[in-house]
Amino acid sequence: MALHTPTHIAPRDTHEDPTSNLLDRYRAIRATTEAIAALMSAEDQTVQAMPDASPAKWHRAHTTWFFETMVLEEAIEGYQPFNQAFRVLFNSYYNSIGKQHSRVERGLITRPGVAETTAYRAHVDAAMEQVLSDGTSHELAEVIEVGLNHEQQHQELMITDFKYLLSRNPLLPAFVTDPSASSTGAPVPELRWLSRDGGLVDIGHSGPGFAYDNETPRHQALVQPYSLASRPVTNGEFLEFMDAGGYDNPAHWLSDGWATVCRERWSAPLYWQKGDDGSWSVFTAAGLRPVDPAEPVCHVSLYEADAYASWAGARLPSEQEWELFGVSAARDGTFLDMSRLHPAAPGGQGRDVPTQMLGGVWEWTSSAYSSYPGYRPPEGPLGEYNSKFMCNQIVLRGGSCATPRDHIRATYRNFFPAGTRWQFSGIRLARDA
Amino acid sequence: MALHTPTHIAPRDTHEDPTSNLLDRYRAIRATTEAIAALMSAEDQTVQAMPDASPAKWHRAHTTWFFETMVLEEAIEGYQPFNQAFRVLFNSYYNSIGKQHSRVERGLITRPGVAETTAYRAHVDAAMEQVLSDGTSHELAEVIEVGLNHEQQHQELMITDFKYLLSRNPLLPAFVTDPSASSTGAPVPELRWLSRDGGLVDIGHSGPGFAYDNETPRHQALVQPYSLASRPVTNGEFLEFMDAGGYDNPAHWLSDGWATVCRERWSAPLYWQKGDDGSWSVFTAAGLRPVDPAEPVCHVSLYEADAYASWAGARLPSEQEWELFGVSAARDGTFLDMSRLHPAAPGGQGRDVPTQMLGGVWEWTSSAYSSYPGYRPPEGPLGEYNSKFMCNQIVLRGGSCATPRDHIRATYRNFFPAGTRWQFSGIRLARDA
Amino acid sequence: MALHTPTHIAPRDTHEDPTSNLLDRYRAIRATTEAIAALMSAEDQTVQAMPDASPAKWHRAHTTWFFETMVLEEAIEGYQPFNQAFRVLFNSYYNSIGKQHSRVERGLITRPGVAETTAYRAHVDAAMEQVLSDGTSHELAEVIEVGLNHEQQHQELMITDFKYLLSRNPLLPAFVTDPSASSTGAPVPELRWLSRDGGLVDIGHSGPGFAYDNETPRHQALVQPYSLASRPVTNGEFLEFMDAGGYDNPAHWLSDGWATVCRERWSAPLYWQKGDDGSWSVFTAAGLRPVDPAEPVCHVSLYEADAYASWAGARLPSEQEWELFGVSAARDGTFLDMSRLHPAAPGGQGRDVPTQMLGGVWEWTSSAYSSYPGYRPPEGPLGEYNSKFMCNQIVLRGGSCATPRDHIRATYRNFFPAGTRWQFSGIRLARDA
Amino acid sequence: MALHTPTHIAPRDTHEDPTSNLLDRYRAIRATTEAIAALMSAEDQTVQAMPDASPAKWHRAHTTWFFETMVLEEAIEGYQPFNQAFRVLFNSYYNSIGKQHSRVERGLITRPGVAETTAYRAHVDAAMEQVLSDGTSHELAEVIEVGLNHEQQHQELMITDFKYLLSRNPLLPAFVTDPSASSTGAPVPELRWLSRDGGLVDIGHSGPGFAYDNETPRHQALVQPYSLASRPVTNGEFLEFMDAGGYDNPAHWLSDGWATVCRERWSAPLYWQKGDDGSWSVFTAAGLRPVDPAEPVCHVSLYEADAYASWAGARLPSEQEWELFGVSAARDGTFLDMSRLHPAAPGGQGRDVPTQMLGGVWEWTSSAYSSYPGYRPPEGPLGEYNSKFMCNQIVLRGGSCATPRDHIRATYRNFFPAGTRWQFSGIRLARDA
Repeated sequence: MALHTPTHIAPRDTHEDPTSNLLDRYRAIRATTEAIAALMSAEDQTVQAMPDASPAKWHRAHTTWFFETMVLEEAIEGYQPFNQAFRVLFNSYYNSIGKQHSRVERGLITRPGVAETTAYRAHVDAAMEQVLSDGTSHELAEVIEVGLNHEQQHQELMITDFKYLLSRNPLLPAFVTDPSASSTGAPVPELRWLSRDGGLVDIGHSGPGFAYDNETPRHQALVQPYSLASRPVTNGEFLEFMDAGGYDNPAHWLSDGWATVCRERWSAPLYWQKGDDGSWSVFTAAGLRPVDPAEPVCHVSLYEADAYASWAGARLPSEQEWELFGVSAARDGTFLDMSRLHPAAPGGQGRDVPTQMLGGVWEWTSSAYSSYPGYRPPEGPLGEYNSKFMCNQIVLRGGSCATPRDHIRATYRNFFPAGTRWQFSGIRLARDA
Repeated sequence: MALHTPTHIAPRDTHEDPTSNLLDRYRAIRATTEAIAALMSAEDQTVQAMPDASPAKWHRAHTTWFFETMVLEEAIEGYQPFNQAFRVLFNSYYNSIGKQHSRVERGLITRPGVAETTAYRAHVDAAMEQVLSDGTSHELAEVIEVGLNHEQQHQELMITDFKYLLSRNPLLPAFVTDPSASSTGAPVPELRWLSRDGGLVDIGHSGPGFAYDNETPRHQALVQPYSLASRPVTNGEFLEFMDAGGYDNPAHWLSDGWATVCRERWSAPLYWQKGDDGSWSVFTAAGLRPVDPAEPVCHVSLYEADAYASWAGARLPSEQEWELFGVSAARDGTFLDMSRLHPAAPGGQGRDVPTQMLGGVWEWTSSAYSSYPGYRPPEGPLGEYNSKFMCNQIVLRGGSCATPRDHIRATYRNFFPAGTRWQFSGIRLARDA
Repeated sequence: MALHTPTHIAPRDTHEDPTSNLLDRYRAIRATTEAIAALMSAEDQTVQAMPDASPAKWHRAHTTWFFETMVLEEAIEGYQPFNQAFRVLFNSYYNSIGKQHSRVERGLITRPGVAETTAYRAHVDAAMEQVLSDGTSHELAEVIEVGLNHEQQHQELMITDFKYLLSRNPLLPAFVTDPSASSTGAPVPELRWLSRDGGLVDIGHSGPGFAYDNETPRHQALVQPYSLASRPVTNGEFLEFMDAGGYDNPAHWLSDGWATVCRERWSAPLYWQKGDDGSWSVFTAAGLRPVDPAEPVCHVSLYEADAYASWAGARLPSEQEWELFGVSAARDGTFLDMSRLHPAAPGGQGRDVPTQMLGGVWEWTSSAYSSYPGYRPPEGPLGEYNSKFMCNQIVLRGGSCATPRDHIRATYRNFFPAGTRWQFSGIRLARDA
Repeated sequence: MALHTPTHIAPRDTHEDPTSNLLDRYRAIRATTEAIAALMSAEDQTVQAMPDASPAKWHRAHTTWFFETMVLEEAIEGYQPFNQAFRVLFNSYYNSIGKQHSRVERGLITRPGVAETTAYRAHVDAAMEQVLSDGTSHELAEVIEVGLNHEQQHQELMITDFKYLLSRNPLLPAFVTDPSASSTGAPVPELRWLSRDGGLVDIGHSGPGFAYDNETPRHQALVQPYSLASRPVTNGEFLEFMDAGGYDNPAHWLSDGWATVCRERWSAPLYWQKGDDGSWSVFTAAGLRPVDPAEPVCHVSLYEADAYASWAGARLPSEQEWELFGVSAARDGTFLDMSRLHPAAPGGQGRDVPTQMLGGVWEWTSSAYSSYPGYRPPEGPLGEYNSKFMCNQIVLRGGSCATPRDHIRATYRNFFPAGTRWQFSGIRLARDA
């Protein structure tokens, strides 16, 4: 996903005709984007609060540009673009398609505004409805499927970029109002270690159902015996690390992590504030409220995740170690829900199955993002979707409370630079068996 | 005016009761601000395109904050502020009033939005109407007068900040549509030198009529015999400088100017673009159009003004030299006119009187901005309006096409750093007699 | 090795008493450092030409500090340090030892100068000679062994930092004078692909002989069938990439690589200069001379290596793929030789064995630098030597023309950030079988 | 003087033949430069500790370049330069002479080193001796005179750049050893106000004796009645400002000054350090020692000088106000003395004459540096010496403890940006009469 909304490639959830329910899904996913945008004013949709974030109306336009450029230009003879200039203006990073407006200057674009963006979406939606109603080739259906998954990725970015934007406003406005955003007060289940033998295992996606290209090909990997934590690290546990001087002691930190702590003066996860009485509050979608010790710790970087693990006498799991448990994990975390947008505390847990692997918070792994053995990027522009980011990024797994429920799966590989904190990123521990 | 909308202090235009027509003027000036804002969408009003500029809705709120903080808190017992947090959020630079939101982060504030800003203005306007209808003390009337002039300064900044914002949009949108923005094609009057003897002269404001504190006290100054150009330098003349390699030859430039040319890769005034055929276009309020050689050159820095003068065998006038001609100058330049917002080519000229001194383009002087002999800043917050900027700034005189017609006068001292280009700033030459 | 002179841990080349020949080796290695320093004037030894580089006299003092702090303070009761302030001044990055002088300010230290640095070395050498003559514990002998390998790493950095420094001097001074630095003109052997079956293989160091901690533990890994190039990519081949527009076409580049090319305006390897006639020269230890098409391309980043491989229809090897061939490779590349300091063109090659794997140029792999399964950092300060850099770094293998001949081995893992170019880093291709 | 060692032009001290004693003075001044360099090691002479400073061996070479380029190339037919590349390498800022090596990269040049720099000086000295022995034209004698004054300016910069360099070394090495650097403990004379009527006065240099072009032409100016302080502000007085929260209260500060205080975290003059017991020490040429309350405060910026004056209910003098007292001032301050290099506390004072105007510390004025009425820069390269810096600089007057005694005079105009602190710059107060 990354700064650069990554990629994919693959069929849907069944062996049926891939185009069977595309129109319904197109309508539903496009509508979800608009529902997220409805949380925001025109002003909210315009500002770029940092280089890594984008304005919401840019997300709305760029996802539309994807369908216009990748589908409509192919599918409709003599297609008339809504505005020829948008081909450059809303190209994110596809060099094979042509020039791009500067990423860091997206927040300087006030025209087209929100209304014109809505009109742009309507224009493209009308043409897409036609294409989808008429039936498409298998190849084009696959590109449309990518476009839908792509838009879901941007839905998550719309949430996290918006949260970051409002966090920079001294008034700290809330953007959801669900009072249930706070925890129930139920005790947090004890952390247990779930073990697994090592050996040759199968990793990656195959078979029906959509997956991005970077999840393929399915291949053998070798793992050593290891254990995985039954649940994510909580705020309460992370506070122990903080109280033990975690942010003051270089011994726990990677070199680049410690340099970042010193340079950025980090002393807590992103969005945390210390009160005059020493208590910690956190900015959430529902505004500022006390840190709930039962919730999963969130908005931490790989550096903080690694330092915490080191302090706790554990380590982060490799992405293979994560996936081996993930394939049988329940969808029991929190997913995209416009009334909440915050992870919930882990509830009770059954047998020897980890909880909240899917949903809740993205979980940092120890794996640098790279290609699977035998991987080949797709031909054409979609070849740029994922592969060119395979350097200086760390893999995260499992999705978060801002991920659409049907967008995540055990083989899904998200990736961000190690210092990233504005995503809903948390920690799951592992250790050698 | 500056990055930091400076200041003032002083009576109105007559010896009459200073509060006589304040209510009418209050209504008119506040309405003008809203008329300027009406050129903009909510999106346009939100973005801060560079640190020196501010969002339009910030200008609208800050000018309202001025009345709320400086007038209503004094005039109305138990005045309830519209929103207590605005006291910090819209404080520009008044340390004596308290904390300020970071200047460079004004563009991160999406809430309050445009609608709430409008409500804020209405709230304060209602209270101000009451205060003005009830009649105010002479002291408070003077503060209100400052507030009105302050708002007029921000009107100009709204225009120049907005123009800069749209110039960063690759679509280069127009924001006025007057076709008469182009010149008539009439020949430019020949530049003539108007001479004046030296000696002891009186400089600065005194007597009735409003002036800022920095225009006082009126005092004697010594000038040497000199001549002033009858009109501003035109685009056509500046093109000759460019064609002669002006931007490539350090011999004409101040050291800091040449460093800026090299670092910023300047090769023309701000907003100029070179076409494939070598012709120059310029972004104006009416969009991109060919450079009109008859118009005054505009959006140049002090560095460019000084280099041009050096190349032309002349120099820039001191602010005293400028003022001595300015006091008898006609108001014959272009002023704030929402259908135009661009300087006009100088028309015919009469006898030995310079034209377009007032209106059209601000004219760089050779004078560093400093206090007049015997100057004392006002007591209280208004003491911060002007005096703390008396370092690293250059005086400009005469107002521009974005200045309200009744806001300018011969003694008016605007000031900006030497490298500033986004104001409507131009060049008038002088030379030793 | 990295910006942060990495690590180690391990016995010597035999099963004999590890301390047997330590004194001889100590003398020899310390003398080599001084021989390198003898290429430089006091002025040369003082300057830090970029944050990643260090002054030569800092290298000389820091390697001495290593013995003083890690060995003498342990070995000699009541040891009197040469200068107590040096404990901080020459600590590179050991948080467990205490504070450190700022890395980027090493070039501000003119006192101690070269003479005092020499005295510091003599002081510590005298004490070390005593310790080594008296015989040391096995534990201390291991630390001394690390100290010797550490000093060899800094020998290479002294060369590369010095070359970089002189490259920033417009006079481009030579620092060796060997005329044989140019190639013989013999034809470059054709590149052949040497194949290998996949399967479970053993990777890493074990047994006698020194190795750094990051080369351990020896462990199983799974590789797929692949082929490795018989020799490094040459300047001539890289020129073909350049002539084909390699530096102008984002299609070949990692996203971060392309951003670097644009930002840094790269159009050739580091130290290359284009003449008015279009021919390329390169700054070498012997001064500026024509690029020799037969030599291995050198001073390229991972980005350039990856882009070249992509353009050539190949890829970089993983570090495991490299090591499997490396273990049987000959020591046939160029090693540290103060009269040359430049890689040689590959000569003829025998059977199906790759040439120049050891020596010549460091070869970028596709592997992010991370810990081997089961890896544990050493206790104490040496635990900081390698492990805290296991993020945002890429593994290089094989040593270079600035590496001491007895310092390299097939399991040796060097690491640098992907954009690094001032090391003697080159390219060896791989491809799926 | 400035970052860019300013200027000159003018006769010597008498009406005699200007060339009469030039050879003696050439020898003496060149020898003084070498005596200053003798305080430094080769390492000390090589480093550039900040962009505004230059390495000492650069100063030694650049002053030599001045004679070689401006004199020898003119005076000697077919003169062979010592090294043709030096024409660019040691050109500071003379665009009319040609290209220049980048100012901020002077510290990257280790070759030529100190020894070759000495040889360069000897080469040029030999040729200059010949020229001066043979007798020169009046025109050339004037250029030589400028060269000598230019070298004296660089002598002061060698001192201040060197002090700054050693201040960045945690060991804080002393570079003079005079124990008398500390004050006598005698009480500081009370500050008295010396008044003067206003009116038309004569300002600037005329007549025999050398002066820089920027001190001319002598001209009339108008001053208002005012008073000048009898002595500079002392450390003790400045400590009162600090104890009163001077660095914490924006009310006293210029806007740019307060921004600098916040950004740079200034809380005391440059080189001051607060001990654990709250006492202040200061780094001097003799090393770190307690702040002496009797000495003139030193190493303050214009911002601090202005804030102090504002806090003290006074102001800084204009340069005209300074000069009117300066013309009758005694040479009673401290001047360049290689055994001391620190200002002394003011001693007793006689009648109504200010003390320590000449020598001790440079005194910030309120005057922006600009040209005198009727000023014309010299023709040729020397026209670049002063005039192109007449923007964004503030005038200082009076010379310092690093100024050669015969280099200063009442009309001398030094200039630096307002935030400059590494010169020996202090404060003299003024007020309206």
